[in-house]
Amino acid sequence: MGFLPVLPSSILLDPLIQQWLAEDVGRGDRTTEAILGNDLRPGRAELRLKQAGRVAGLPLIERVFRAVDGGVTVQYEVQEGADLPSGTSVAYIAGPLSALLTGERVMLNLIMGLSGVATLTQRYVQQIGDLPTQLVDTRKTTPGLRLLEKYAVRVGGAQNHRFGLDDAAMIKENHIVAAGGLGAAVERVRESVPFPLAIEVETESLAQVEEAIAHQVDIIMLDNMSLAQMRQAVTLIRQKSSRTKIEASGNITLETLRAVAETGVDYISTSATITQAPWLDFSLRFLPKS
Amino acid sequence: MGFLPVLPSSILLDPLIQQWLAEDVGRGDRTTEAILGNDLRPGRAELRLKQAGRVAGLPLIERVFRAVDGGVTVQYEVQEGADLPSGTSVAYIAGPLSALLTGERVMLNLIMGLSGVATLTQRYVQQIGDLPTQLVDTRKTTPGLRLLEKYAVRVGGAQNHRFGLDDAAMIKENHIVAAGGLGAAVERVRESVPFPLAIEVETESLAQVEEAIAHQVDIIMLDNMSLAQMRQAVTLIRQKSSRTKIEASGNITLETLRAVAETGVDYISTSATITQAPWLDFSLRFLPKS
Amino acid sequence: MGFLPVLPSSILLDPLIQQWLAEDVGRGDRTTEAILGNDLRPGRAELRLKQAGRVAGLPLIERVFRAVDGGVTVQYEVQEGADLPSGTSVAYIAGPLSALLTGERVMLNLIMGLSGVATLTQRYVQQIGDLPTQLVDTRKTTPGLRLLEKYAVRVGGAQNHRFGLDDAAMIKENHIVAAGGLGAAVERVRESVPFPLAIEVETESLAQVEEAIAHQVDIIMLDNMSLAQMRQAVTLIRQKSSRTKIEASGNITLETLRAVAETGVDYISTSATITQAPWLDFSLRFLPKS
Amino acid sequence: MGFLPVLPSSILLDPLIQQWLAEDVGRGDRTTEAILGNDLRPGRAELRLKQAGRVAGLPLIERVFRAVDGGVTVQYEVQEGADLPSGTSVAYIAGPLSALLTGERVMLNLIMGLSGVATLTQRYVQQIGDLPTQLVDTRKTTPGLRLLEKYAVRVGGAQNHRFGLDDAAMIKENHIVAAGGLGAAVERVRESVPFPLAIEVETESLAQVEEAIAHQVDIIMLDNMSLAQMRQAVTLIRQKSSRTKIEASGNITLETLRAVAETGVDYISTSATITQAPWLDFSLRFLPKS
Amino acid sequence: MGFLPVLPSSILLDPLIQQWLAEDVGRGDRTTEAILGNDLRPGRAELRLKQAGRVAGLPLIERVFRAVDGGVTVQYEVQEGADLPSGTSVAYIAGPLSALLTGERVMLNLIMGLSGVATLTQRYVQQIGDLPTQLVDTRKTTPGLRLLEKYAVRVGGAQNHRFGLDDAAMIKENHIVAAGGLGAAVERVRESVPFPLAIEVETESLAQVEEAIAHQVDIIMLDNMSLAQMRQAVTLIRQKSSRTKIEASGNITLETLRAVAETGVDYISTSATITQAPWLDFSLRFLPKS
Amino acid sequence: MGFLPVLPSSILLDPLIQQWLAEDVGRGDRTTEAILGNDLRPGRAELRLKQAGRVAGLPLIERVFRAVDGGVTVQYEVQEGADLPSGTSVAYIAGPLSALLTGERVMLNLIMGLSGVATLTQRYVQQIGDLPTQLVDTRKTTPGLRLLEKYAVRVGGAQNHRFGLDDAAMIKENHIVAAGGLGAAVERVRESVPFPLAIEVETESLAQVEEAIAHQVDIIMLDNMSLAQMRQAVTLIRQKSSRTKIEASGNITLETLRAVAETGVDYISTSATITQAPWLDFSLRFLPKS
Repeated sequence: MGFLPVLPSSILLDPLIQQWLAEDVGRGDRTTEAILGNDLRPGRAELRLKQAGRVAGLPLIERVFRAVDGGVTVQYEVQEGADLPSGTSVAYIAGPLSALLTGERVMLNLIMGLSGVATLTQRYVQQIGDLPTQLVDTRKTTPGLRLLEKYAVRVGGAQNHRFGLDDAAMIKENHIVAAGGLGAAVERVRESVPFPLAIEVETESLAQVEEAIAHQVDIIMLDNMSLAQMRQAVTLIRQKSSRTKIEASGNITLETLRAVAETGVDYISTSATITQAPWLDFSLRFLPKS
Repeated sequence: MGFLPVLPSSILLDPLIQQWLAEDVGRGDRTTEAILGNDLRPGRAELRLKQAGRVAGLPLIERVFRAVDGGVTVQYEVQEGADLPSGTSVAYIAGPLSALLTGERVMLNLIMGLSGVATLTQRYVQQIGDLPTQLVDTRKTTPGLRLLEKYAVRVGGAQNHRFGLDDAAMIKENHIVAAGGLGAAVERVRESVPFPLAIEVETESLAQVEEAIAHQVDIIMLDNMSLAQMRQAVTLIRQKSSRTKIEASGNITLETLRAVAETGVDYISTSATITQAPWLDFSLRFLPKS
Repeated sequence: MGFLPVLPSSILLDPLIQQWLAEDVGRGDRTTEAILGNDLRPGRAELRLKQAGRVAGLPLIERVFRAVDGGVTVQYEVQEGADLPSGTSVAYIAGPLSALLTGERVMLNLIMGLSGVATLTQRYVQQIGDLPTQLVDTRKTTPGLRLLEKYAVRVGGAQNHRFGLDDAAMIKENHIVAAGGLGAAVERVRESVPFPLAIEVETESLAQVEEAIAHQVDIIMLDNMSLAQMRQAVTLIRQKSSRTKIEASGNITLETLRAVAETGVDYISTSATITQAPWLDFSLRFLPKS
Repeated sequence: MGFLPVLPSSILLDPLIQQWLAEDVGRGDRTTEAILGNDLRPGRAELRLKQAGRVAGLPLIERVFRAVDGGVTVQYEVQEGADLPSGTSVAYIAGPLSALLTGERVMLNLIMGLSGVATLTQRYVQQIGDLPTQLVDTRKTTPGLRLLEKYAVRVGGAQNHRFGLDDAAMIKENHIVAAGGLGAAVERVRESVPFPLAIEVETESLAQVEEAIAHQVDIIMLDNMSLAQMRQAVTLIRQKSSRTKIEASGNITLETLRAVAETGVDYISTSATITQAPWLDFSLRFLPKS
Repeated sequence: MGFLPVLPSSILLDPLIQQWLAEDVGRGDRTTEAILGNDLRPGRAELRLKQAGRVAGLPLIERVFRAVDGGVTVQYEVQEGADLPSGTSVAYIAGPLSALLTGERVMLNLIMGLSGVATLTQRYVQQIGDLPTQLVDTRKTTPGLRLLEKYAVRVGGAQNHRFGLDDAAMIKENHIVAAGGLGAAVERVRESVPFPLAIEVETESLAQVEEAIAHQVDIIMLDNMSLAQMRQAVTLIRQKSSRTKIEASGNITLETLRAVAETGVDYISTSATITQAPWLDFSLRFLPKS
Repeated sequence: MGFLPVLPSSILLDPLIQQWLAEDVGRGDRTTEAILGNDLRPGRAELRLKQAGRVAGLPLIERVFRAVDGGVTVQYEVQEGADLPSGTSVAYIAGPLSALLTGERVMLNLIMGLSGVATLTQRYVQQIGDLPTQLVDTRKTTPGLRLLEKYAVRVGGAQNHRFGLDDAAMIKENHIVAAGGLGAAVERVRESVPFPLAIEVETESLAQVEEAIAHQVDIIMLDNMSLAQMRQAVTLIRQKSSRTKIEASGNITLETLRAVAETGVDYISTSATITQAPWLDFSLRFLPKS
């Protein structure tokens, strides 16, 4: 991974954590309130991995529990992004027992989901780790979790594609038809969007690739092409427009990934590392008073 | 499925849809705005299933697109909850082309995720469809999506467990320790929570089951017990407390599910149908003007 | 009261306190800002009860003032839920004078209203304190204040009924008609709602009580029945379905309460302790610098 | 009442109605959703007054139900602010039965509370209807409901005092002490607040009244003065500063109100019409299909 | 300026600051996150004025940066409201370098805009500083920034007019027509609005001024009158209604301001000090580690 | 302008309009509510330009008034972005008179500010209209108004730079120092940010320009360079890296703009068209019933 990604800014994340806790708490943590009341006795719990995988989202442990009670502290036993065997002790969490009980589920739901994404991403990345091609994600993310799922993709070793409809222009078939041609579409976008934004075009044939080169787009996506077509497209683009980035997209699987990378494309985009990722299992065990 | 579940109330859902669209749109749909501008030309698209499975979330199609533009209409070709082959045409969507392009991704992300949950749930339910035991979900749900994922579980044919920390009391090991005993815990909860709330206790041994019966709890969870233990527990509870509901929990898989159901428990809870569910694939194809 | 209830979680309460302060402050506390400006001189005030009653909401004093200024501290002189004579010194509040002036009204409005509810509730509870019947509240609460008014009911010594439309099923006449019969209604609800939710049915005749027993509902409400009818219903239910809870409802007054309790019902629900409760009077007196 | 007050602007009210409905609905109207599902069968209900009184908040009926379902219509049988006998049919409400069932409680809670305020206010106003003195309210209002409770006060025939800390300056004892004198306080406020804002001073003695006159404040409040003191103060103010408004405040009851008014003050402020008002009883009866 | 105004309450301001930071951060401070990651190395920066003027908004520096990171501290070198030469060192800001980089732009945008308003306001005020007439603002303010722009006006030495449609009644031509006459309009307003609210009437002729006097309004606005008309109106009002405040309005410029003030009006309102104010230039220079 | 820009999506804009109206309305439009009450009589008004300039924001007229009352309609007399003489009739607005009076100020504040920006931008753009260089804006925008001010810049004929910290990487001096060199900074950013994001570097010398070229950044900003330096930099970049975009920045004025453009840079960024733009004057005149 080289360089560890950072969690989304608290300006963006704190309101989401608040919302997620409210979703679980509803009208109150009935059981804990009934039994502990205003009793602030300390508790301590161990977060343990129950399945081998790459952990992601550990800094969220602190963020979630602190939103319940400012007095919770977390002692991390492993690094964010580590590949760990089942049974590893990941962190110790200390604070009012009632806060640990109330925040437990939201915290686990977050890190189990994100570690699932990081673990699957890492398996994909591993297939092509020795090649210059980068794996990237897509906008197929769980509604409300885009910032965090894209963070997990990076913990998994891949890079991010655009975060939404706003941080790059992506010209698709329908845009081309509406504009009356690929060239017209590119020109209209170039005039309108903030000038630093990259312009990417989805192409489905070599003819379209040529047209995209002619209009000097920043990124050419080879959409659902055969390996042979992709190789031809790569050769063409490298010759005529060396700075243009090439992205392969469409039906990427763990099995086909390496062959696609070997065509020489710069980026391979797949939603699979998010949409096909099962959660990674963790448990929180409360410890007796030491 | 018998009776079709209903989507969460618009009072709850509309603000979430607004938030999810804003997440994707960010500072604007650069490409569509550049190419279509204020052009309100009509568009039409077909939503097609690309994988066999059970569809869930179809009423959301209308809700999402209408939040983008009130003029979008949807013609459904299939029923919510139908089990469909790959390639089925699911719905036709008509409205301003720009609205279809802007709302497409959020709509797809929702129904692909929910249909994934319904499809996997249905596979679990099928294992025990001829037995009286009901499959139920847990609080392991994606933060922010609990209402919808629990809806998808029901479309999949299972029933819901509690929606959060508030709509039943669930006494766990740590509550018992904090209260100084199972009985004390139950009594304290009974005094404190709204009286209609059910009281459930997690038990790990027959001794605990006996204690739970003695304190007349509403639901006894058999947590991680062997099949033999579960059978004994069921017999015990049926004898002494016929109205008590029995829930089995812990490490339920497609393989073990039926054997657990055959112990005679009333409910089997599993998070797997949500946390292990891959998205079901759909595509949205834009149609030429007819 | 036995066990002291706890205030709603700060996850739920803090945004409400923020909203209530904003409602009072509007565009600014003109007078205090004009006179004190950025002057942070300390102030000290005594909260005094001006009428005999049971105090409720004292922990809110700290919460409200801290939302204005983190430096305010509160020294409590009495316990939450205490029955106190007029003139009792309830708490001393210290902090920047400007914060005390700005937060005063919202704080007083909260504890005066809640103490009013607790005081009236306590008067009702007192009538039946020696009987096993529990007094409970209803969903007739001031919009926006349900969590706190239900908290005050508990400080007053009664228990809570459901907190909203979601934490129990309550089958009323119109539901029965729509379903085509009491039994059909119960079965449909049983299939659909989260399984731990209790099912309650409103009954107006012994025939309906019998039907409700036959369908094994969890709670039977005797709605507007005569004392004689209630006694018959209680006998019937105790015989045939010993675990079913019985709730009496309808036109409960301080005068009729005890007679209803003596019919042997488990719960008597009334909105009166909230809807008929006058505020309890308090004053905040600023103290000279000591 | 002369001229009917208007409900708060929808810009302010709609978000509150949304919040109040969400408070009651919680995670869903379990019963209605289970029984009616997506069934949109029409329903019709009659809102009936169960106690004599003055009705307030009728326009809210439509606002609340429309927030649940845009298709609900209301036919009003009486006018807002009418004084009606018990049993009066107030309105007929028609729309999807499920919407009527879901919105019922919030609607009733609003109009019962507001009609209670209007009814009690009207009783106070009646005592002094033939005198020029106006009854006004205070900032003692239920947190979150200030706009509506002040609206109800006007429906009851009284006028409003300031709506918050921002729409008039009110100099109290502590402000005077902090400023180092009444005159200094007035001057500082006059320099600082938006110039159209009225400046009111609380006075407890004739000496303070003289000082307030000397500094040309707009409103002089006579706080907790005896009737004799008030008469003297009125004479003094009328002589020296004919445009200054005079407000009497402190321990106003139905019994003392008229005597205070007869001192000749312009306004008498009391929180009692809000804080001592029991709800007025209404019922919603569902009607058979016609 | 005499007495320094205070920033809007944090109850009102903090949510706005949060919103403004989110507007700039969007999906993350890409550059800073990439380069500094979780590196918390300290930074230090000097805020310097690059143009002569009056500074306003300095307390916001701390508020903005603390919303990014609670560990930022600010050392002020000058006083809020000071008139300073170009090049003045205004403040030193210390904290995590990443927080300084992320919060920089929002902080600068605020103080540059507000100082621009204060500077221009001060130029206007200077024209009439020796006269008793006060300069005031209007409701022509940038949407979302009213509280702060009106604060800046006060730092500039002028006073505020009403903050919105709610804190004074302002009867305009259309209101008069709708009511059927000036007198009718005034009476209707007097009956309806909270009694402390001032009633102001826009007049365009001496006849209207007479009518306004006859109905004892609190403020008479002379709208777009000639100097001669204004002088006549002032004489008339002073004679007949000495406590009535007189406001001149319409096409006030730096050139005409003094002449208008010399007519003897109490207040001159102008939007120019906000709507014509260019930003005042500041720069933030990062300092080497000391 | 060629192609008309589109207003921000209603998903983003509607909540802002709601907030701006609430800011002005506060606790209610006292005057209009008092005089018109529930009277829905129709009104009609003419929006007229009182100063020559380019109009921007016209589509907001409809959006703002409709947020007050859905029944308002607008008839536009001119096109968005038109250059118009003083006195032009811009639009006729019809709807309930009360809605026109309540929404008037917010609508005017928006279009006056935005038209001011468009008008000044157009004056700048005019200086270089015959050259290939494009004028662009910066992140110096009024907090809360970035989307709309950047929209107005485009109506004025210029293009947008990035909208926030997220939609391009901008490496500044401090980032370079923190990373330990320009090259290291670029590489770290390239690894971390979403791959379509452009990487821009601020350079202050030709040496830095060379380094930026060597690291293949997408945009090179020439910061505060002399014309001679800029010419050299342009030559250098064109030779070695033809696709790299060149931006000039720093102290651009109407006077220097053309000379800078003639150096051959692709983009010139300036905040002046927003931060130095006075509002353009409009008036809303109510028309007699026709």
